[in-house]
Amino acid sequence: MANNSTTVNTNGAVAIVNNLTWDDATWILTSSFIIFTMQSGFGLLESGAVTRKNEVNIMIKNAADVIFGGISYWMVGFGMSFGKDEGSNGFIGVGYFFVDSNGPDMGQLFATFVFQLSFATTATTIVSGAMAERTKLTSYMVYSFFNTYVYCIPAHWVWDKNGFLNKLGCVDIAGSGVVHLCGGTASLVATFLLQPRTGRYENGAQRPTLGNPVNTIIGLFMLWWGWLGFNCGSTFGISGGKWKLAAKSAVITMNGSVGAGFAGIVLSVILYKGKYDVSTIVNSVLGGMVGVTASCAVIRPWEAVITGAIGSILSVFGARLLDKMKLDDPVGAISVHGVCGLWGMLAVGIFAQKENFQNLTTGRNGLVHGGGFYLLGVQALTCVSIMAWSTFGTFLILWLLKKTFGIRLSLEEEELGADFVEHNIDSNNRNDSNIIFSSRRTSRIPSSVSTITRDSLEMITISENIRNAPNRTDQNEDNAFCKFLDQVITKLKRNREIAPAE
Amino acid sequence: MANNSTTVNTNGAVAIVNNLTWDDATWILTSSFIIFTMQSGFGLLESGAVTRKNEVNIMIKNAADVIFGGISYWMVGFGMSFGKDEGSNGFIGVGYFFVDSNGPDMGQLFATFVFQLSFATTATTIVSGAMAERTKLTSYMVYSFFNTYVYCIPAHWVWDKNGFLNKLGCVDIAGSGVVHLCGGTASLVATFLLQPRTGRYENGAQRPTLGNPVNTIIGLFMLWWGWLGFNCGSTFGISGGKWKLAAKSAVITMNGSVGAGFAGIVLSVILYKGKYDVSTIVNSVLGGMVGVTASCAVIRPWEAVITGAIGSILSVFGARLLDKMKLDDPVGAISVHGVCGLWGMLAVGIFAQKENFQNLTTGRNGLVHGGGFYLLGVQALTCVSIMAWSTFGTFLILWLLKKTFGIRLSLEEEELGADFVEHNIDSNNRNDSNIIFSSRRTSRIPSSVSTITRDSLEMITISENIRNAPNRTDQNEDNAFCKFLDQVITKLKRNREIAPAE
Amino acid sequence: MANNSTTVNTNGAVAIVNNLTWDDATWILTSSFIIFTMQSGFGLLESGAVTRKNEVNIMIKNAADVIFGGISYWMVGFGMSFGKDEGSNGFIGVGYFFVDSNGPDMGQLFATFVFQLSFATTATTIVSGAMAERTKLTSYMVYSFFNTYVYCIPAHWVWDKNGFLNKLGCVDIAGSGVVHLCGGTASLVATFLLQPRTGRYENGAQRPTLGNPVNTIIGLFMLWWGWLGFNCGSTFGISGGKWKLAAKSAVITMNGSVGAGFAGIVLSVILYKGKYDVSTIVNSVLGGMVGVTASCAVIRPWEAVITGAIGSILSVFGARLLDKMKLDDPVGAISVHGVCGLWGMLAVGIFAQKENFQNLTTGRNGLVHGGGFYLLGVQALTCVSIMAWSTFGTFLILWLLKKTFGIRLSLEEEELGADFVEHNIDSNNRNDSNIIFSSRRTSRIPSSVSTITRDSLEMITISENIRNAPNRTDQNEDNAFCKFLDQVITKLKRNREIAPAE
Repeated sequence: MANNSTTVNTNGAVAIVNNLTWDDATWILTSSFIIFTMQSGFGLLESGAVTRKNEVNIMIKNAADVIFGGISYWMVGFGMSFGKDEGSNGFIGVGYFFVDSNGPDMGQLFATFVFQLSFATTATTIVSGAMAERTKLTSYMVYSFFNTYVYCIPAHWVWDKNGFLNKLGCVDIAGSGVVHLCGGTASLVATFLLQPRTGRYENGAQRPTLGNPVNTIIGLFMLWWGWLGFNCGSTFGISGGKWKLAAKSAVITMNGSVGAGFAGIVLSVILYKGKYDVSTIVNSVLGGMVGVTASCAVIRPWEAVITGAIGSILSVFGARLLDKMKLDDPVGAISVHGVCGLWGMLAVGIFAQKENFQNLTTGRNGLVHGGGFYLLGVQALTCVSIMAWSTFGTFLILWLLKKTFGIRLSLEEEELGADFVEHNIDSNNRNDSNIIFSSRRTSRIPSSVSTITRDSLEMITISENIRNAPNRTDQNEDNAFCKFLDQVITKLKRNREIAPAE
Repeated sequence: MANNSTTVNTNGAVAIVNNLTWDDATWILTSSFIIFTMQSGFGLLESGAVTRKNEVNIMIKNAADVIFGGISYWMVGFGMSFGKDEGSNGFIGVGYFFVDSNGPDMGQLFATFVFQLSFATTATTIVSGAMAERTKLTSYMVYSFFNTYVYCIPAHWVWDKNGFLNKLGCVDIAGSGVVHLCGGTASLVATFLLQPRTGRYENGAQRPTLGNPVNTIIGLFMLWWGWLGFNCGSTFGISGGKWKLAAKSAVITMNGSVGAGFAGIVLSVILYKGKYDVSTIVNSVLGGMVGVTASCAVIRPWEAVITGAIGSILSVFGARLLDKMKLDDPVGAISVHGVCGLWGMLAVGIFAQKENFQNLTTGRNGLVHGGGFYLLGVQALTCVSIMAWSTFGTFLILWLLKKTFGIRLSLEEEELGADFVEHNIDSNNRNDSNIIFSSRRTSRIPSSVSTITRDSLEMITISENIRNAPNRTDQNEDNAFCKFLDQVITKLKRNREIAPAE
Repeated sequence: MANNSTTVNTNGAVAIVNNLTWDDATWILTSSFIIFTMQSGFGLLESGAVTRKNEVNIMIKNAADVIFGGISYWMVGFGMSFGKDEGSNGFIGVGYFFVDSNGPDMGQLFATFVFQLSFATTATTIVSGAMAERTKLTSYMVYSFFNTYVYCIPAHWVWDKNGFLNKLGCVDIAGSGVVHLCGGTASLVATFLLQPRTGRYENGAQRPTLGNPVNTIIGLFMLWWGWLGFNCGSTFGISGGKWKLAAKSAVITMNGSVGAGFAGIVLSVILYKGKYDVSTIVNSVLGGMVGVTASCAVIRPWEAVITGAIGSILSVFGARLLDKMKLDDPVGAISVHGVCGLWGMLAVGIFAQKENFQNLTTGRNGLVHGGGFYLLGVQALTCVSIMAWSTFGTFLILWLLKKTFGIRLSLEEEELGADFVEHNIDSNNRNDSNIIFSSRRTSRIPSSVSTITRDSLEMITISENIRNAPNRTDQNEDNAFCKFLDQVITKLKRNREIAPAE
């Protein structure tokens, strides 16, 4: 470390673009890599939650979030959040556009940029779930490009030293407000503008079942471990006392998820009469982690259990309330990220305790630790500011898109599914794609052919046998039956020729 | 590092709750995050191995392991293993209950806790595979809460400096004994108490095929890489000479898995007449890694190849023996973790070599390196102790549960599958879940509708056409056929209305 | 760090087997663990791209790459690349066979070996995709064992200080040439020797659809994040100025992928008339990352966007050209890795800029930064050398295998699919595997039975009802119909008994 040209700076709340040691850089970069895997987690979670005819489309949306969100974040987003050039003020940063450096700040600029990029792409992804199953992909791509500015402005307010909320002492360590409340609010606006999926709230319609619950749970797991990088990486290093806060953040994150999971399981048993509902459990765990994201280094482990459990309850009843209001959010993004993000910000005002390692709360305590209402007030103000901005910003982008390109698939496209309409993927037939020529295909029935296909082949055979039985020709009276058999044979055969597989 | 308030301590076997540098903390936390991904690996491995009607249930069990195992580990488990307060002795630790700290030990306590938590939740998960397809989820959750005490006591014996086996010089670097043998033994007890899946050993029944082999292999891959965190993280840091042992552990782990995979492939070709059996290969690689887990920093690379290969053979023949004894273990957990865990502990006694970096073997050598039988004896004693305790502890929990709540699904529930019974998931229909209203659905046949569904729609059309053909009404003699067609039409139509999809 | 027994050495291009600090070791090992996850990424990408009847086989091939490639790399491969013993020269290294150490170099040798092992197994995996759906698994395993020598020789030329291309000043930071061009060339040779899948280029055959696009995209995501470990880990440490280059590499990698993804999406819209083709997008992102792999620490962020975009275009049109030449590459490995690998090497000659942290370009600049044609010439020479060697080496192995064991499945085996032929997995039936006895199975129709199965059961019931209706016996004229019904009943029942499931 003596060889390290930078000096250690252990001051300041969530230091951004600061002096880093190489030890800090290892931590930041490793955390970033872990956080990027959350994109896969969101992809699987959402893909597993929608109907099979849209499962590919939502994965591509998650890739688009990185591609379009990534390019606009590199171009202007990072600079709007953390720029220090002339023109920067409490509302917006200026500078670092088209992020580049060859000078002495290269290491800390690039490490910081990669870390913030992983946050930015995650923030956009939240919205993709709420817009699932009915949004035009082209419009979504345009949206994910411009969404950067919706996210970057609150990030400046809260995380940049010049930000007006940062100056007031707002605490949002890993983004309950900046990432989740902002994304959840955007989801609400998107849901409102898109309108529900066709038939979703028509008389007696049930909440659709998950298309692939195993993928949904794998998505939960990936997010669970990714969240550790998210929250622990937000100490922005490991040197000085930062590693202690990073270790604490891991405990708080796990305890928040565990408390939430426990509450979610109890809730599921009550609400679903003894059944363990997958969506309820998954969204509870996620809601609990959103709930402790703002406070992950400044509350105590048992407070994390409680905060997580409250997050769980809010995510479950939030989703029910939204359904009552006919705001159709296929994956529960609004309640998980929006409602629990709001709760997470307020929880700081309640449970935060000052610490001496990084002084993340600028010396303030939350309500239950004798700090009075100041911090809670600042947190509430932050929530109102983020919600207002996100509503305005998202509405502007999507309303303009709605009036120009349109944001919604046509009824027929929705019925056919986005996988077919946008990607030419026939979700029903793709399992059987086969390049062996059809002419050779019917030559025999291989033992691996499925029962159903075998049925179909045997139906042809049986029907043909009966049709051609010698004793049939003289039975004039079941001409109709012969005709029926002929039709069956013709139809079944034609299907077998059309179908690319067996 | 001069800024680091703690001092470097390079003494002691597998230091737990020790003085850490921030470099060590980075390593421990990063390793923990990697180890947590093993939960996903176990989930996919098990979910892919069971029948499709239970694939979601087993994923939820893996989530429950983290939730219930996590909360009890935080409450009492960690303290039972590593507590130092009054009352601690060679058998059990006291202290650190409801893990929390705001003092100078915060960093090392929390980092250690997170690392150990990742081990503890993994240990519980082992058992979930053996209990698959027939266990009541509610009882499993209670079990996973209480299982903590089964795991934490041997962890104290072996890994805490006060543990009686630790004092004898027992070596179990990353847990062949504490994690795998303990979990494997618990699996055996659970299998015995649960009894086999219905029909499993009735005359001529074959070992059921894997429900989703791709997921099983992805699970293997996740465990494979996760194991690197598991074994390398167990140096508990990187400072001093620890990083050298961590690097060595990575080589030993890879070589163990490679030797095992090689042996498993050869075994599969022999036992399955030239076929490459997926379960055999997967369980071989896992068995090999379990085999080198205890010794990963103290044996040589070529010894790892041999140890892994023996692990592979034991895992394959162990599973066959258990099947002969009608102990039904759907995923092979008993042989992979139990039998190979036992082997891994004994392998230390055979191959271990003293090293000077951390003195992990307290100066002792194994049998082939001239150390005589002492170490092998201690390792054998450790195995006996762990197996006895795990048998007793697991039996107590599950027997009490069996006598009260019951641990086994009813025959009908088992037949329907846990996904349907516990989670309301109809595994057969969920692929097609669709929120478009049925009234609109039959208006036309979209090109994306599957062949099979198309068959069904066309059957209706054909049948209706024939039924309503003008020449039918005057043919009295095939009334029965008309009746048949009517019934077919009615039934098919009703199905299409009930089924939420096409 | 004062306690660290080794000294810091910040000299030299991509230092291999060098003096490492423990901070460097943390970085190298963590990167290696991340790189190993790319094996899972390749597995899912390829498994999702092939037809369902081969999806398990390709996963096992990826496991075999680690097992057989890993064992031969440990035995001789690492030594051939980085050995320093007598006999080493510019063409090949000698030494470090059966990698082992107990001495002072243990840490750096093992850390280096693990890192290089993760590269070596990745290199072999590239070829598995091009050989998919028609290759004998046994021959593939032999190939993956011997492929080590194909990869290790160019690695010596380029990455070892004694290598003749290294001495000329060739720059290939993370392996566009050594890993990707080498693997892509091997894929081309394999494709040529194997010949296309049956029917692939017969009149009018379309490119087969992806068997499981969700898995393909998850595979892309895993590779995306794994690539960060790949490129950033290639600074081979974090001490001195290395961390700055590691941070830069992360930015270049992300920008390369983002530029490529953008170009790929535009290309897809043009080529597929407004559709977002999954293969095109996936292979674009990968091609872009291959394109910046050689230059990831020595080009500027905006150059990465351009380099990535060109990589995307090359990967898309490369694949089309190969199809025109009837070189059948099921997953596009030749264009993604071969063509883009070639581009990545040349891009260094165009865009590279000297830096002072590690002097990776030995003081040289690329064409656009005023360095003239020297570097471009060396890069071109490196490409020609690698392609020539890989062609020769791969041809030799596969040609010998073709003449002895054979490398291609028979037509019947290809038609049945490798999952069935090699692994006894019936991809059509496995979803329903069920151990409940068939005798108990038909006793009632559980509500969870699928519509299709319900149809089948109801067909039996309806048919039986009509067959046994009292008024049928006196209707002589539909004997044929009765016979038909009897046959239907018999056949359907028999199927239900044979079929292991419902």
